[in-house]
Amino acid sequence: MSRIKLDPRLAADTHVLGSLPGADVLLHRNAGVAWCIVVPDTERTELVDLDPALQVAVQASIQQVAAFLRREFVVDKLNIAAIGNIVSQLHVHVIGRRRDDYCWPGVVWGTAGDTVYSEAQVAALRAAFNIFANNL
Amino acid sequence: MSRIKLDPRLAADTHVLGSLPGADVLLHRNAGVAWCIVVPDTERTELVDLDPALQVAVQASIQQVAAFLRREFVVDKLNIAAIGNIVSQLHVHVIGRRRDDYCWPGVVWGTAGDTVYSEAQVAALRAAFNIFANNL
Repeated sequence: MSRIKLDPRLAADTHVLGSLPGADVLLHRNAGVAWCIVVPDTERTELVDLDPALQVAVQASIQQVAAFLRREFVVDKLNIAAIGNIVSQLHVHVIGRRRDDYCWPGVVWGTAGDTVYSEAQVAALRAAFNIFANNL
Repeated sequence: MSRIKLDPRLAADTHVLGSLPGADVLLHRNAGVAWCIVVPDTERTELVDLDPALQVAVQASIQQVAAFLRREFVVDKLNIAAIGNIVSQLHVHVIGRRRDDYCWPGVVWGTAGDTVYSEAQVAALRAAFNIFANNL
């Protein structure tokens, strides 16, 4: 399902949900927040250095993943970030936060998380994502 | 110089550098990293909810601020993020990180910082920013 070769640390932390034009979409194993990661199909490491066409595609993917998260989870605030200090492969965090989540109002990066998804939950979210992506 | 009414917490943490189309640009007082903040001219609180025209303008501003930071500072990695869990006024962090900065490779949010700018440094960066913005 994934078309893009993932950095092993990124792969270890996530489940693959599916693909959008120009990017794969991952689900972080940390189920304490609603956390997707958009991985653009590029070897560049900075969002601002992407070719304009890929930049537009990545922004559209971010928008679509945000809509998906709002549909599947309770989301009070979105946190959208390209950091990459540890894993240099370009990846954009799209995170739905709740005022009662385990690390609110702090940022989630660097925290350990408090729950993980069951296999059935991952399968259901993957199915929902693929129906969502096919209807875009 | 600022056209946009700033949340008092955002104003307290920053110096105003200047404006770009659709956004004001702030410099965070924390001089331990090269930290600008883009404040779009909107009352919406999520990047993904902006009108398409403002969204394009904000992406251009982020790109320009990143170019400015790369020109004025040593930047090994950019961290670009819209978080807003504490200050809901929409603002996008554009941060130049160095592998030897005080909180590398962690994220800067939630850290205290180790240095601040002198008045002369702020004035010089503001002048440089305005020359840069006028030449875009």
